[in-house]
Amino acid sequence: MIQIAVMGYGTIGSGVVEVIEKNAEIIRARVGDEIRVKYVLDLRDFPGDPIESRVVHDYQVIANDPEVAIVVETMGGVEPAYTFVKEMLLHGKSVSTSNKNLVAEKGAELIAIAKERELNFQFEASVGGGIPIIRSIYKSLTADVIEEISGILNGTTNYMLTKMTEDGSDYATVLKEAQDLGYAERDPGADVEGHDACRKIAILTSLISGKQVDFQKIHTEGITGITPEDIRYALAMKKRIRLVASSVRTGDTYTALVAPFLVGEEHPLYTVNGVFNAVFVHGNMLGDAMFYGSGAGKLPTASAVVADVVDIAKHHAPNRNIPIQWDQEELTLRDYKTFSYRFFVRTKGSAEEAKAAFGEIETVSAGIAGETAFLTTEMTEAAFEEKAKGVSLISRIRVK
Amino acid sequence: MIQIAVMGYGTIGSGVVEVIEKNAEIIRARVGDEIRVKYVLDLRDFPGDPIESRVVHDYQVIANDPEVAIVVETMGGVEPAYTFVKEMLLHGKSVSTSNKNLVAEKGAELIAIAKERELNFQFEASVGGGIPIIRSIYKSLTADVIEEISGILNGTTNYMLTKMTEDGSDYATVLKEAQDLGYAERDPGADVEGHDACRKIAILTSLISGKQVDFQKIHTEGITGITPEDIRYALAMKKRIRLVASSVRTGDTYTALVAPFLVGEEHPLYTVNGVFNAVFVHGNMLGDAMFYGSGAGKLPTASAVVADVVDIAKHHAPNRNIPIQWDQEELTLRDYKTFSYRFFVRTKGSAEEAKAAFGEIETVSAGIAGETAFLTTEMTEAAFEEKAKGVSLISRIRVK
Repeated sequence: MIQIAVMGYGTIGSGVVEVIEKNAEIIRARVGDEIRVKYVLDLRDFPGDPIESRVVHDYQVIANDPEVAIVVETMGGVEPAYTFVKEMLLHGKSVSTSNKNLVAEKGAELIAIAKERELNFQFEASVGGGIPIIRSIYKSLTADVIEEISGILNGTTNYMLTKMTEDGSDYATVLKEAQDLGYAERDPGADVEGHDACRKIAILTSLISGKQVDFQKIHTEGITGITPEDIRYALAMKKRIRLVASSVRTGDTYTALVAPFLVGEEHPLYTVNGVFNAVFVHGNMLGDAMFYGSGAGKLPTASAVVADVVDIAKHHAPNRNIPIQWDQEELTLRDYKTFSYRFFVRTKGSAEEAKAAFGEIETVSAGIAGETAFLTTEMTEAAFEEKAKGVSLISRIRVK
Repeated sequence: MIQIAVMGYGTIGSGVVEVIEKNAEIIRARVGDEIRVKYVLDLRDFPGDPIESRVVHDYQVIANDPEVAIVVETMGGVEPAYTFVKEMLLHGKSVSTSNKNLVAEKGAELIAIAKERELNFQFEASVGGGIPIIRSIYKSLTADVIEEISGILNGTTNYMLTKMTEDGSDYATVLKEAQDLGYAERDPGADVEGHDACRKIAILTSLISGKQVDFQKIHTEGITGITPEDIRYALAMKKRIRLVASSVRTGDTYTALVAPFLVGEEHPLYTVNGVFNAVFVHGNMLGDAMFYGSGAGKLPTASAVVADVVDIAKHHAPNRNIPIQWDQEELTLRDYKTFSYRFFVRTKGSAEEAKAAFGEIETVSAGIAGETAFLTTEMTEAAFEEKAKGVSLISRIRVK
């Protein structure tokens, strides 16, 4: 029997207990041993819940119990999760976490501690919920130089953009709808401002580069400025607006960015609607690949956590580290302003003014009076900013 | 340095050498050691090729060289690949293969031999080319009961069906086009009759069930009977015809089938066009997921083989077996005739005759004179066959 503890009995943590119980038989067959939840750490009690008698309030009870081999962390946030997880590793326990904030900020350090001690620190659920993208990167896509990884990594904003596209409604209306349905938090900032997607692309970029990416250095724009008019133009161009988190290889490093993009129907990400997530990868040998699935939700995310537990359990007794290349050395990202796109631009001025500022343009019509809308040729962010000084800019969206 | 041998220097084998050379630096960083191709086994010589001096014609040279740790098999076909691969394992060498025929027929046995000897037998490239579906099943989707796995697993037929849909051309025309482009063999039977997809779904079903599936027991229909009229009806229903290889969990086993299906636009497989492959998975906790990418082609397939080599190399010295649950016990598939679908039916008779035979029907119009076309309610294959005796059947296609 392999005994585990779950730290944080919220949505994901209770999902982990549910997956382990519901699929006990098949998990036992795959591990070759039974997985049992010995403790649940939470500040609250859960009277009447089947795990009631296993609830503890002090993480040291878990750290000091030599019977606990694996600890699941589903608390969220950097602290106290970081202190607790580090303590568990130092006490000889492997860890699986769903916590993107912890992994983005402390991934390299916790991986190094686990490696030194022949333990494992795994985090499949931290990006893309149930989509097995993390393990695919470090176990399967290992023969390739990854030239691009671009994802729809936030289900809340993708749901909102999908609804805006289907219903023509505005940002505030769909936000309220998403909140009523439980797809968006009462304080939606982490999602709609792009911070959630930013941590996730930082994790993916760290994994494909093997170095630590500082998520605070990734230029991040959210979807709060997207209007029904932008959506109408997108439809007129047969494109969709999606919040894309992207890293593209440029020389020896990557250019990373989180922002709304216009995605054309020939791109695999075009078809990703609603709360689904997807990760597009281009390898120099593999070519294009895409991973698609439920990016959030209790059971899909818990499924990924338990898959980590199964993987760790199969490498337990004697402990064996599953190598993950993610060093503490920081990756110097390339300045996103040197990267080129086509831009979709809306201005208050005339097409002549736009041509004078941008040179060759391709005008776009969606029956909206009093403005000029157009696509530029491909140019760097820096060049765009310079040229945009010559027009009365309403808005601009990058084109994928 | 880790020395390997490549058996079979055709398209995939030469791709393996190319990937190892082009990505030598990043592969070295990931493995922590250099991978070097010591031998290439082929019946032919390759004068002028950089590997010229490494070509051997006798597989025993490789088997008896203790310096060779890993052998790649890219010859294709069951024999002599089976004899050679088994001999390599018995001589203490791990193996990676791209050979679906070998894996479908001998997978369980070769996995067992590898396990006994603390070696590895891996086969990521045998299904879906560069798409990392095999390792995802045994390493990542381990917390789930897989309730369905359905794939577009053959690029040739998907290319042909896509062209028939886009151009309205007939089967013979697109086959010739595919042959001229090198997408189809001169003898296209393995692809167009569904045999290739059948072996691949047998491999996937063995992996999700943990038991050996006999591919000969999977009911298999190809695309040779699909006509431009079928495509017109599909378009009228906003569906696409795709060759789908599918296994669905029914009780304690699976129902497997390879056949053309009408796929609706709400299904993730709907968007998979051209030579691309995709695998749709439904887990009881995970929900829906899909893996998409190049299902064939020299470098994508070679990328998957080299990823196996990297994985094996990381588990080399001391050798450690990466457990794959696929026992030699045969899985008794459920009779496909007990499985239910809706059917799209074309008959020479009247709608009244169709109603008399099938009860409730939904007629479909595509402006084709002299026939009645309709969708049935959901019914078993057996029930369909019985009812179809009451009509003058032109054709029928299952609906996904």
